[in-house]
Amino acid sequence: MTPPRTQSTTTDVAIVGAGLVGCLLACFLSRRGLSVTLYERRSDPRAADAERGRSINLAISARGIDALDRIGLRDQVMAEALPMRGRRIHDIAGQTVFTPYSHDGTRAIESISRSALNETLLSAALESPLVTAVFEHRLLRVGLEDGTLEFETPDGISTINAGVVIGADGAYSAVRARLLATPGFDYRQDYLGAQYKELTIPARDDDFAIDPEALHIWPRGGSMMIALPNPDHSFTCTLFWPHTGPGSFDEIDSGEKALAYFTANYPDAVPLMPHLIDEFDENPVGNLVTVRCARWSVNGVVGLIGDAAHAITPFFGQGANCGFEDVVELDRCLDETDGDWARAFPLYEQRRVANANAIADMALENFVEMSTRSASKVFQAQKDVEHTLERMLPEHYVSRYELVSFSTVPYAEVVRRTTVPSQARSVATGVASRVSDSLTSLIGRKGDSA
Amino acid sequence: MTPPRTQSTTTDVAIVGAGLVGCLLACFLSRRGLSVTLYERRSDPRAADAERGRSINLAISARGIDALDRIGLRDQVMAEALPMRGRRIHDIAGQTVFTPYSHDGTRAIESISRSALNETLLSAALESPLVTAVFEHRLLRVGLEDGTLEFETPDGISTINAGVVIGADGAYSAVRARLLATPGFDYRQDYLGAQYKELTIPARDDDFAIDPEALHIWPRGGSMMIALPNPDHSFTCTLFWPHTGPGSFDEIDSGEKALAYFTANYPDAVPLMPHLIDEFDENPVGNLVTVRCARWSVNGVVGLIGDAAHAITPFFGQGANCGFEDVVELDRCLDETDGDWARAFPLYEQRRVANANAIADMALENFVEMSTRSASKVFQAQKDVEHTLERMLPEHYVSRYELVSFSTVPYAEVVRRTTVPSQARSVATGVASRVSDSLTSLIGRKGDSA
Repeated sequence: MTPPRTQSTTTDVAIVGAGLVGCLLACFLSRRGLSVTLYERRSDPRAADAERGRSINLAISARGIDALDRIGLRDQVMAEALPMRGRRIHDIAGQTVFTPYSHDGTRAIESISRSALNETLLSAALESPLVTAVFEHRLLRVGLEDGTLEFETPDGISTINAGVVIGADGAYSAVRARLLATPGFDYRQDYLGAQYKELTIPARDDDFAIDPEALHIWPRGGSMMIALPNPDHSFTCTLFWPHTGPGSFDEIDSGEKALAYFTANYPDAVPLMPHLIDEFDENPVGNLVTVRCARWSVNGVVGLIGDAAHAITPFFGQGANCGFEDVVELDRCLDETDGDWARAFPLYEQRRVANANAIADMALENFVEMSTRSASKVFQAQKDVEHTLERMLPEHYVSRYELVSFSTVPYAEVVRRTTVPSQARSVATGVASRVSDSLTSLIGRKGDSA
Repeated sequence: MTPPRTQSTTTDVAIVGAGLVGCLLACFLSRRGLSVTLYERRSDPRAADAERGRSINLAISARGIDALDRIGLRDQVMAEALPMRGRRIHDIAGQTVFTPYSHDGTRAIESISRSALNETLLSAALESPLVTAVFEHRLLRVGLEDGTLEFETPDGISTINAGVVIGADGAYSAVRARLLATPGFDYRQDYLGAQYKELTIPARDDDFAIDPEALHIWPRGGSMMIALPNPDHSFTCTLFWPHTGPGSFDEIDSGEKALAYFTANYPDAVPLMPHLIDEFDENPVGNLVTVRCARWSVNGVVGLIGDAAHAITPFFGQGANCGFEDVVELDRCLDETDGDWARAFPLYEQRRVANANAIADMALENFVEMSTRSASKVFQAQKDVEHTLERMLPEHYVSRYELVSFSTVPYAEVVRRTTVPSQARSVATGVASRVSDSLTSLIGRKGDSA
């Protein structure tokens, strides 16, 4: 065993975590003339295989695209993206219904590979001579007063003196764990009763096996599978199942049992998933946590960003989008304070905390909508009504989904606009409700044949 | 510098933290024939001066006394305790009013020295040959699967193999910090807007300077000072002031400013506090945090107890009492499961979590009662009515304060009984309300001269 070697270096900004948000932040900060070092616990993603069981693809929409646009990466990233223009709901009989995301059917959220996006952002960051990235660095200590850092590395302990430390180290952030002991650091973490596991629908005859222009949902009432397309014509499926009880990961704990469960509950997916048994046995079960911190910085020296500050559930496709918006806002706050972190951090947290809490709530609510309500004919009829109203009253009626996914209206304002009805909105909602009632009774009379 | 030495030892139960609850737990567990080691971060309290600025005395009541009784320590501890039979409210003019805690004026909560109680419990634990205590051990790692522990000590790293690990390491528990990363570990911490600082009213002519049979309160509307008697005839005073704003620790940040503030707001206390300026300058400002964990154990191997599981604010005098009740319950669960920790821990958390949340809520509510409502004549009249009803209808009407302080009724049941009125209780409350209205109008007519 080699004796531990102690290194000591200096950087303007230490970003802990070289994931999506950390790399994007490095791009923005180096443009300000700051020296930035990215410290990543894992090995270099450009050398190693992508880690198993973390989300393989994700949906990027207006907020994420806006951030990429600001550093000139929009076109490069979008070239590899696959637009999903709506939801395709798979019922238990294998019938599908498509519900567009926008009233004109043109707007799309974009399915992209997490690892490809990460590598694009890391490479973009490293194009600046001001940015360095080091890997296999596990955070041991953070000095909250002076920005000192200690990492465990394959070569021993590494000590860093940073002007500013930013934790971009995800939902289980080690930087945040250190901030938890700070007086006044109000905090909560709440696990969802559902867990997740990823599976694959491979390409068939070099083409997509199912409609590639949709986010597919198999809603089964508090439980569901979704699928997003990949550039190699496969789909990554994610099961969201309860932890315990009927149809849970506790109950269905082997590939064989999963096959039987799929045959009964997702029958149309079974022929699409030839590796179901092996993948189910091999892939890990992941947890879904919502994290809320009342403060995102301490002493003007240590800050948090992205999932480290506000892990949310994935049901609105906003995890990365929200983190990217954090980066844009932090950069804006630095602009407004002439780069004074002691003033920029408080401004940033003041502007972002309520928005992060708002999307956290909306994402939790959307789990119910996706897994339960999206299956109902009434829900589909209501979406039709919403889109009709959006066409008829564009100034007065914009759905929550449109505002979250296709605008950069602050999340907290989205909640306000779509919760507390303005006068115009109450009229529209009244119309929607009456139309929806008529549709419901109409569908009711038609029975289940639609 | 001496090269680090690695020690490795084995114990049935490792208790992290040799405070009140850790030491009491060691007493209970050693009686079960388990070998127990207490690991304390601080130095041996029997050798060093008591730590400054932590609460110097505390109130022990029925629940704490019950626990002490079970291991034969009741008489020894109570011999040093000072009974406080009610609140003595100091108004801004220096007038005082006494409100007894129970309808017959005989029941008392007991003021005792935290350090003396800690030493009593530590000595009692160490009387068993099965108990060991080691100091200056700072926890570095906990193995959640196998109960391994790593401590930093003055002699290097110490590695322990424990059958079971219990974190009794207080509101800022290092064991809990490790559990936070466990899937499903729902958690929240909330800091109170108020902070605290301790001061002293020394003995005068070898006697108490003010009534020793009361808990003294100077309520000032969202802000207050309290004082509890000590065996040396002094009182320990605690200021509970806001963090920021008028009358806050931010504003009044020196002994000189404090003297001016006291002269205006606690005028009767000023002549009793000759060391006010120096003590205010020297003593630290402490924070008040409420901690809630949905789980108190993991894998049947690592558990939490006392403040580590449920830090609460001190406004019901129940911090130690609640922790002692945890110990009694955990011991009971071990009885019921034949000492099988894997079954005892889940039973223990199932029985205790709701009760800890209930006393956390009641303690927060009591801050409002103590600092604001206790000053009003209406409040004092209502207490009189409550006590009258308790005398008249003992089966039907028992106040929340009595149930918390003078019974071992589970806290969650106290909340139920004193929140959701039973039929009998609504009658009593109706009477109370009418009597109280009459008193209020009577007092109103009498003006402020009472």
